[in-house]
Amino acid sequence: MRTILRVDMSSLRISKETAGEHFRFLGGRGLGARILSDEVDPRVHPLSGDNKLIIAPGLFSGSTIPCTSRLSVVSKSPLTGGIKESNVGGPVSQALGRLGFACIVIEGRSSNGPHVMRITGRGEIHFDPAEDIQGMGNHEAVEKLFSRHGKQISILSIGPAGELLLPTATVAATDQDGFPSRHAGRGGLGAVMGAKGLKAIVIEGEGNGEWECSDKELLKESIKDFSKMVMKINKMNKEYGTTSLVGFINRANGLPTENFSRGTFEGAGEISGEKITELIEKRGGKTGHGCYPGCIIKCSHVFNDKDGNHLTSKLEYETVGMLGSNLGIDDVDAIAEMDRLCSDIGIDTIEIGATMGVLMESGQIPFGGAEEVIHLLKEIPEGTLSGRLVGSGCASVGKAFGCTRVPVVKGQALPSYDPRALKGMGVTLATSPMGADHTAGPVFPGMGKLDARKPEGQVAFSRSVQINCAVLDNFGLCLYTSPSPKTMEFISNSVKALYGEEMNRDRLADMGKQIIGMEHEFNERAGLGPEADDLPFFFRQEPLPGIASFFDVPTEELRSVRKSFGEN
Amino acid sequence: MRTILRVDMSSLRISKETAGEHFRFLGGRGLGARILSDEVDPRVHPLSGDNKLIIAPGLFSGSTIPCTSRLSVVSKSPLTGGIKESNVGGPVSQALGRLGFACIVIEGRSSNGPHVMRITGRGEIHFDPAEDIQGMGNHEAVEKLFSRHGKQISILSIGPAGELLLPTATVAATDQDGFPSRHAGRGGLGAVMGAKGLKAIVIEGEGNGEWECSDKELLKESIKDFSKMVMKINKMNKEYGTTSLVGFINRANGLPTENFSRGTFEGAGEISGEKITELIEKRGGKTGHGCYPGCIIKCSHVFNDKDGNHLTSKLEYETVGMLGSNLGIDDVDAIAEMDRLCSDIGIDTIEIGATMGVLMESGQIPFGGAEEVIHLLKEIPEGTLSGRLVGSGCASVGKAFGCTRVPVVKGQALPSYDPRALKGMGVTLATSPMGADHTAGPVFPGMGKLDARKPEGQVAFSRSVQINCAVLDNFGLCLYTSPSPKTMEFISNSVKALYGEEMNRDRLADMGKQIIGMEHEFNERAGLGPEADDLPFFFRQEPLPGIASFFDVPTEELRSVRKSFGEN
Repeated sequence: MRTILRVDMSSLRISKETAGEHFRFLGGRGLGARILSDEVDPRVHPLSGDNKLIIAPGLFSGSTIPCTSRLSVVSKSPLTGGIKESNVGGPVSQALGRLGFACIVIEGRSSNGPHVMRITGRGEIHFDPAEDIQGMGNHEAVEKLFSRHGKQISILSIGPAGELLLPTATVAATDQDGFPSRHAGRGGLGAVMGAKGLKAIVIEGEGNGEWECSDKELLKESIKDFSKMVMKINKMNKEYGTTSLVGFINRANGLPTENFSRGTFEGAGEISGEKITELIEKRGGKTGHGCYPGCIIKCSHVFNDKDGNHLTSKLEYETVGMLGSNLGIDDVDAIAEMDRLCSDIGIDTIEIGATMGVLMESGQIPFGGAEEVIHLLKEIPEGTLSGRLVGSGCASVGKAFGCTRVPVVKGQALPSYDPRALKGMGVTLATSPMGADHTAGPVFPGMGKLDARKPEGQVAFSRSVQINCAVLDNFGLCLYTSPSPKTMEFISNSVKALYGEEMNRDRLADMGKQIIGMEHEFNERAGLGPEADDLPFFFRQEPLPGIASFFDVPTEELRSVRKSFGEN
Repeated sequence: MRTILRVDMSSLRISKETAGEHFRFLGGRGLGARILSDEVDPRVHPLSGDNKLIIAPGLFSGSTIPCTSRLSVVSKSPLTGGIKESNVGGPVSQALGRLGFACIVIEGRSSNGPHVMRITGRGEIHFDPAEDIQGMGNHEAVEKLFSRHGKQISILSIGPAGELLLPTATVAATDQDGFPSRHAGRGGLGAVMGAKGLKAIVIEGEGNGEWECSDKELLKESIKDFSKMVMKINKMNKEYGTTSLVGFINRANGLPTENFSRGTFEGAGEISGEKITELIEKRGGKTGHGCYPGCIIKCSHVFNDKDGNHLTSKLEYETVGMLGSNLGIDDVDAIAEMDRLCSDIGIDTIEIGATMGVLMESGQIPFGGAEEVIHLLKEIPEGTLSGRLVGSGCASVGKAFGCTRVPVVKGQALPSYDPRALKGMGVTLATSPMGADHTAGPVFPGMGKLDARKPEGQVAFSRSVQINCAVLDNFGLCLYTSPSPKTMEFISNSVKALYGEEMNRDRLADMGKQIIGMEHEFNERAGLGPEADDLPFFFRQEPLPGIASFFDVPTEELRSVRKSFGEN
């Protein structure tokens, strides 16, 4: 049976309990949503001791099933004011799963400075004072922790942004090379961890790795087919990383350029996956690298600077889009430096990219001004009023400058997809309980036999993808296994193989709906009603140059989406 | 017939139309709500050209009825994201009413810099470039305008805050001494005026002042009784200004102290109406002064500095509470200096007081640190990132500092009333379509035969006061005439006397309900559903010291209030 570990940061007391029937088949996002809904009054302040931070490996994390390294970090978000599941890869989820943890529930607030929580290979918990790494960037902090506890650990940590309680702060996770390059980036959950008084969680052991399995043969068989499928659909990701999307989305007219004023970027070639791969190969980085040992997708790319020194291992499409084209910047080295800084400070590259776009639109810094962006980024960890404004994210900066073009939903910035060219994606961004979050239900051109530029059918299709994504997030599967019927089929088979229980696709879909329903219900009680389910109005008013497309999915249709998700 | 003046700032074109049957009996807030609901898509950005700024004198403004000098400034608010009626006194409303204007509807956005709009005594409209007063504080700007256009004008203007589009910016109105001391303070409507490209509106004439009257004798009689009543209930206001409330609210345990952590302030005596009056008399200021010639309440107090020079004419209770006790500051001179600065910059003293309280709570500046507050205030007109953060108001600053005690509703700061000691007031602050705004329905201890510290009956009583306030705001009556049945009776009689039409109290109440219903409907379409109708959770979690009272009116009860207001 899986264990729920509870940590009260006010007293540094821990307790363990068995995850019982109430949590059956719930892992990751689903488990997080269940516990938060059960235990946290949605009206509490996200950074108060009454909020809880739930760190939950997917249900399959730790098993031999590939691409199940996703960890869900769940809490009430200081950015959106609603529930947030922020999802991150790397070896942490696997390690927690193998140690038998269903999740860690972090409660209270430390009264005597930040701590490091350490989970030993036997599942014992220790707290170390964090004075020596307090205020440190993620890179230096994890280096210290590795040197102290050995290389066989994995780490979750926050940077200065989390310690400063900024609502753009991330929870960083180390990758298999020991870099803090993976981030539960969205929704400011690093600030929740900071408020609790937790600088880092060190997981020393990897557990015994033995999982009971009801039908080993079935598991083996279905993994075989699934792996083939996953590898086939991820060829481009392996070769060019997720930045292979730059060209694709640019051609689809959906690449945000200069604060979402255009959907194509003249410098797209300079920031494309092809270009980045070329530079990586020239400078001795790595392509086709996994974020954890069991990965068969291998979308990670290790990017070195001109001198061959490691800069970043996660030059993701959304980062390149929001800090590149969205800012009119076509210099990959500058973008990689920004990415490195964001990793180090522990801030969300999407949110900060959108924030800088609004600062550019407002004339505070020029479009294309990479140096100015880097200068502002460096001010964030200083904790000055200026740094705090920038680190508050896109909505706050938009308000401070009276900008009328602020790309946010529920206070959270849009990722690198223009919803006028990608209307199904737009529906997800508008209606997800997560705020504007592509991972809640990515709809790409060509999916669902829909014309991405037409509104027809997008609501229903986005809804179905959102449901499948909630299921993926429950089981800890990487989004790149795809939120498709085939993957749902595979999950069904795996549940049967592992637990000997029938969970057909309908039951899985019910589970997805229930998770999203719980999240919406939490949001409503927190103050986010259906009225919040829409995109900023400028997407409806300004035609996207080139294709003259407005976002024209009716507001009322968007606001009705959540009604279709009922709890139980 | 009244005239609606329309001004398109994009083209500087004006048009006039007769206020027809659709607007019958609507003035001030009611007229503003009607026009905004009819003409503005609630989803537009508040600072876009599609939003409209409606400047509407009360229906009685300009008549011989006393205390009808209230002007409603109505728009979609950049602070709350919903509809906002911000109400201001001074001679402007009277002047517009006498000129026969039902309202001015300002549309579009100027593309060639800010302008001054001038309304001549014949009702002609001129636009002057505002380059010479651009960026100027309100005091200097109106001085220039007076010297150019003579002393017989009244002026609406914005300070640097409005020009910077800050969501705390006010629309200032000159008082009868020519000081820009009255402010449509709440909701950032100064930024809307700034976005339109309007630095000031000069009203040169006072009209002919002749109003048709169906029954002069009835009007005279009812004014007589009404005046007696109004003067009787405002004795303290005349003698000590609205700061007479300091002692009263302090004794009721409702005076916000150190960011709403206590309801009594040890320095209350130092900032009381009595103390302020003493200083005024010593330094040659004025007490018992009206904000416009026809006032019989005379709550204005002209406060001079130690050298006898004019500092401020509107040291209101809410200003003294939010910049005084709420910041742990008991130095009236410092508070008056802050007030002067706020008047000059054109920012809301309530919002800024709450903002400074959160900065103090967060350790950025110390409680009691008047100098630090003044220093930060002075940074606002500079337009720096720091100044813009402070000028963004309480919610933004709370977010930037991760503060868990942020006294706002719908993004707008609470005025100087602790809702744990004044629960009826708390209901108004939570449920008004205006965000936390006491003028939407002030409930004081002793009203409605209720115990202010008990939750019972507060919802129903606040609702009835909110309805009466909407009626007052429709007719342009000062809040200090009191939102009581007696005043409603007086309005009934006045309507009959002026227009020969029966408008009994039920019909008035229906009008009030319809206005509030329109406002809620606008808000819902704008994204503010009933989920937004609650107070910050800390008021429910932290007992108010001394009386150990929590805010305990159930959330569900609060959220149900708006349902009881239906449009038509």
